Amino acid sequence: MEDKTSRAEFTVRTDLALEERERRPDDGEKISGVTLREWQGRNGRIRLTEVKILDGRGERAMGKPRGTYLTLEADQLAGKDEDYHREVSAELAGQLRERISDMLGTEQNNLMRVNILVVGLGNVQVTADALGPKTVGQLQVTRHLDGRYGNQFCCESVPRISALSPGVMAQTGMETAEILRGVIRETAPDLLIVIDALAARSIRRLGTTIQLTDTGIHPGSGVGNHRHSLTKESLGIPVLAIGVPTVVGAAAIVHDTVDALAEALCADTKLRKMGQYVRAMKEADRYELIRELLEPEFGSFYVTPPNIDELIGYLSFTISEGIHGAVFGSREI
Amino acid sequence: MEDKTSRAEFTVRTDLALEERERRPDDGEKISGVTLREWQGRNGRIRLTEVKILDGRGERAMGKPRGTYLTLEADQLAGKDEDYHREVSAELAGQLRERISDMLGTEQNNLMRVNILVVGLGNVQVTADALGPKTVGQLQVTRHLDGRYGNQFCCESVPRISALSPGVMAQTGMETAEILRGVIRETAPDLLIVIDALAARSIRRLGTTIQLTDTGIHPGSGVGNHRHSLTKESLGIPVLAIGVPTVVGAAAIVHDTVDALAEALCADTKLRKMGQYVRAMKEADRYELIRELLEPEFGSFYVTPPNIDELIGYLSFTISEGIHGAVFGSREI
Amino acid sequence: MEDKTSRAEFTVRTDLALEERERRPDDGEKISGVTLREWQGRNGRIRLTEVKILDGRGERAMGKPRGTYLTLEADQLAGKDEDYHREVSAELAGQLRERISDMLGTEQNNLMRVNILVVGLGNVQVTADALGPKTVGQLQVTRHLDGRYGNQFCCESVPRISALSPGVMAQTGMETAEILRGVIRETAPDLLIVIDALAARSIRRLGTTIQLTDTGIHPGSGVGNHRHSLTKESLGIPVLAIGVPTVVGAAAIVHDTVDALAEALCADTKLRKMGQYVRAMKEADRYELIRELLEPEFGSFYVTPPNIDELIGYLSFTISEGIHGAVFGSREI
Amino acid sequence: MEDKTSRAEFTVRTDLALEERERRPDDGEKISGVTLREWQGRNGRIRLTEVKILDGRGERAMGKPRGTYLTLEADQLAGKDEDYHREVSAELAGQLRERISDMLGTEQNNLMRVNILVVGLGNVQVTADALGPKTVGQLQVTRHLDGRYGNQFCCESVPRISALSPGVMAQTGMETAEILRGVIRETAPDLLIVIDALAARSIRRLGTTIQLTDTGIHPGSGVGNHRHSLTKESLGIPVLAIGVPTVVGAAAIVHDTVDALAEALCADTKLRKMGQYVRAMKEADRYELIRELLEPEFGSFYVTPPNIDELIGYLSFTISEGIHGAVFGSREI
Repeated sequence: MEDKTSRAEFTVRTDLALEERERRPDDGEKISGVTLREWQGRNGRIRLTEVKILDGRGERAMGKPRGTYLTLEADQLAGKDEDYHREVSAELAGQLRERISDMLGTEQNNLMRVNILVVGLGNVQVTADALGPKTVGQLQVTRHLDGRYGNQFCCESVPRISALSPGVMAQTGMETAEILRGVIRETAPDLLIVIDALAARSIRRLGTTIQLTDTGIHPGSGVGNHRHSLTKESLGIPVLAIGVPTVVGAAAIVHDTVDALAEALCADTKLRKMGQYVRAMKEADRYELIRELLEPEFGSFYVTPPNIDELIGYLSFTISEGIHGAVFGSREI
Repeated sequence: MEDKTSRAEFTVRTDLALEERERRPDDGEKISGVTLREWQGRNGRIRLTEVKILDGRGERAMGKPRGTYLTLEADQLAGKDEDYHREVSAELAGQLRERISDMLGTEQNNLMRVNILVVGLGNVQVTADALGPKTVGQLQVTRHLDGRYGNQFCCESVPRISALSPGVMAQTGMETAEILRGVIRETAPDLLIVIDALAARSIRRLGTTIQLTDTGIHPGSGVGNHRHSLTKESLGIPVLAIGVPTVVGAAAIVHDTVDALAEALCADTKLRKMGQYVRAMKEADRYELIRELLEPEFGSFYVTPPNIDELIGYLSFTISEGIHGAVFGSREI
Repeated sequence: MEDKTSRAEFTVRTDLALEERERRPDDGEKISGVTLREWQGRNGRIRLTEVKILDGRGERAMGKPRGTYLTLEADQLAGKDEDYHREVSAELAGQLRERISDMLGTEQNNLMRVNILVVGLGNVQVTADALGPKTVGQLQVTRHLDGRYGNQFCCESVPRISALSPGVMAQTGMETAEILRGVIRETAPDLLIVIDALAARSIRRLGTTIQLTDTGIHPGSGVGNHRHSLTKESLGIPVLAIGVPTVVGAAAIVHDTVDALAEALCADTKLRKMGQYVRAMKEADRYELIRELLEPEFGSFYVTPPNIDELIGYLSFTISEGIHGAVFGSREI
Repeated sequence: MEDKTSRAEFTVRTDLALEERERRPDDGEKISGVTLREWQGRNGRIRLTEVKILDGRGERAMGKPRGTYLTLEADQLAGKDEDYHREVSAELAGQLRERISDMLGTEQNNLMRVNILVVGLGNVQVTADALGPKTVGQLQVTRHLDGRYGNQFCCESVPRISALSPGVMAQTGMETAEILRGVIRETAPDLLIVIDALAARSIRRLGTTIQLTDTGIHPGSGVGNHRHSLTKESLGIPVLAIGVPTVVGAAAIVHDTVDALAEALCADTKLRKMGQYVRAMKEADRYELIRELLEPEFGSFYVTPPNIDELIGYLSFTISEGIHGAVFGSREI
């Protein structure tokens, strides 16, 4: 009943546009069709990077669809410091507010009349994949209050927020897109926010990087590798995706080892030739090597941080507070 | 943000047609518009009762909509005996199969081409209300396999089963009926099975009684008292409801105490008059008494068995296995 | 394997000295051997009551051993307001610090050299009984750091805190006192703090009252009614108990109903005699009545708040933060 | 507050004697001081291997203390097949019974008078490390029944079983050995059984191999790498350890990649020299290479199977049933 491991799963995959940008050979130089902007958050403890893919050339170069990819790098996010988590939530709130306004064409200080559906992707029973459902579990919804405290409560004072954790296809027998299409048709939100656990290439990214994109979710992303397309095209409304890497594929580690070995050999004058050989190994040969190492079922093995259970707790709090800040402002409901 | 306690919540509520039938004054005699049939399961360890409400008179007498209410009473269901659980699953499977065939107008041995959506109602984070989501969490879905192993896998060899735990309105901001209407429109199931935790009047029923009805879910039922209508009328497809009582409202206990006190007084010749007085207390007076006892927020307090966490585990296993037996037969998938 | 319900379980039990004090007939007047002191917390949102049982007369009148019983009543503790939780934590920290200093004969600002074992009683798998283990699960321990960062880290800068959740006898096959005696002998703490879920008489107390006592834990207290003695006599070191009511026994509700009925009858001039009769029903007769109502297994049924799962989350946070404040002060570790 | 990563953590670690045996260069030949015996379980679906380390030479060769290391390899153990789980439980029961009898010098059919303490090591909040606590959570204890059903219940009809999940040092502030020494002194068991999640070298072992040893637990083993010595020497009673690998250290994957690369190069006649060079890289150089790859915090990263949450569920059931079979035989209690 499990997916057969496809060749694609042996390749080294990242869901982060930032990592994709970093591994381009011409790093430092410009890639046509792609812009890059970097700055610091207020207290200098959060680093923000915006990658914009502008056209088809950019799409081909980056292997990702055109759109805006904003990354918050927050090194201490995986740790226990509550004040830092709040700082990240505040920064996230500001960025989300900007993004939502852009996507809906409204003014930033006027999200009152907005109707947003927040969806937590992933499997709550698989720790590393539970980020979406856990975040949604802490979310304050408001849509159902409309009509209860006078008909205009929501549109007058707070936006209409609804939320759902649909589960994964192996649990539901349905594609997430089917479920969401149905729910969207019935409840008519203006915007979909999806929260998802991602795969990164680098261990260093785990639990420390939040990516916001206005491009939705594309096939093959996410922990578990089962996501199908959740985009404006497939769902009819704009889709803002919030993702945090919680796993690195085992294949990425193998790949990095080969690189480091090449590097090590090159550094030695006598062995430089061997190093150059290894470095020059074609992707196809590397693939064979990795395949040899990673027996069939191994392709889907992941590396997670030792405190993954705790980490998901911190992240789901930080993201849910970020969304609260974006849509409700500082007011308590 | 919580529901105000309404007068209705102070009244003594049961979701079991069987209990409703039992408390009719003319118990033993016939109620017009209602039929009653009782029998034993194969090993004599399960008691089955079928209450049929046939017409408007029956509806008024029972306070429930017309339809068939089948009850499996299985005294040891709350205990640890795995063999007994399997026996109940098997009985449940047979009854479900019969009910599904009736509702769909198919033959019992030919459920292959059926497309069923199973929905677990309730809040997974509230132990007594988690029966639905926990059962669905153990369910084997098949609908997504169609097309994977050749296009006709599902319709040829197993029915198409899909499943969803939509959460409760306080978590989603949406009515469950809205979510389900959308999902049903997209995925076009023939039948909806909903699983729900119920409120009973009698402690003795907790975790020992399974009720199957072809009438769907009606407003005000279920633990938490927030269910809205899930019926053929509201959703467009027939709805088979599986419910197990996991709570008794505190009001029921107060009510029973007053009854027992009246009984006790009547038994004493000197005090008989007082007993008769108490017994004759009008519902309105009783309501006042109960109201006095149950300060505002108390109306929603529940009595649960001490082993409620364990109990939900047993029940969700038994019901998911019952559904598997009904739709897949004995074959493993 | 389960305890038979004993006569004692049908009687109405409270673990709160405050409730015991309140139901004395001469409420308002003095009870000899018992002192009572009441005041408000800093912001007037917490009410504190200190009951001191001074001698044998007090013990007999109150049915509890001599010692100090401090109660914090915090009405909003069961709600979601984080600021209020912090306020209660701060008040609790101050009271704990005072109590610890008293019990150890040290000065309040000098707990540095203290070695404290914190124990969470109860069964983590039974929601209403999980308060102790959940609190301990959030506790910052330090004892093992000693020796790591230079030999004197603990005694110089922070107290030595260790913690354990031993589980209940049905899980371990051992009495908690056996486990703790062994651990205390090996690790030689100066003081034991035990955290426990309690039974109250009044629904209103659930999740809103914290009781601190210097008398330890006595047989028959706690949710599940299985606690054995954990006192200075049985363990060799002073025992500070922190308890919060999370359940009301079903028997208490029956009892209250009878009282309310008597009250209601007395209020009516024609029925006053009946009311007086009911009010005067001897404990033995009431016991028979309750027994009749509460079929064998029912004695151990509890009433819990509908949001018990959430409530345990709030309480365990508030208490663990209270302990952190008491032993570490405001400093972060 | 977290352990600094030591050099030892970068080396490739296995807790399985079987893997240690396999990687000896003279595999196939005899290692002096070590015996090896292999056979099949009853249905041929379980492979058993017994490694005995007999003396100092064996200890040095294997890097593990002398004693018996029995391994059950059960390829399908990580899957859902309940019948297979029961088959493994039965095989495990037989082996445990033999081992217990050996260690206590009793006859296999006469474990009635035995008093056994079962301890689940690890952190229940870290999925891959939760095997011990989860197994203990499903264990049927009996020691507390003694005295309840007549004084001789336990010694006459069933052994005395007690159980504890002490938690890890970061949660308790105490070494597990301290806690256990205390509990053993108070409750005087004849034998300690410890259950632990292990680290393997090979992905293939995860969740498919059960190791039984009579040597206890030694420093540096287990998931989390924090175990201290739990042996007859440190605790005073014999210690039977049951372990299942649930993680592979990231370092092992890097190591394997280098090996595979060397292999690949050697296979090519033109590149053979390079391959030989890589193969011959000294451990120290490999260590440098791995260190370079694995930035400081990375040493403690683990690879787990994607279904780790489910897997822990299967394994804890299989092991608890194995223990039940060993100590209670087929009789239900």
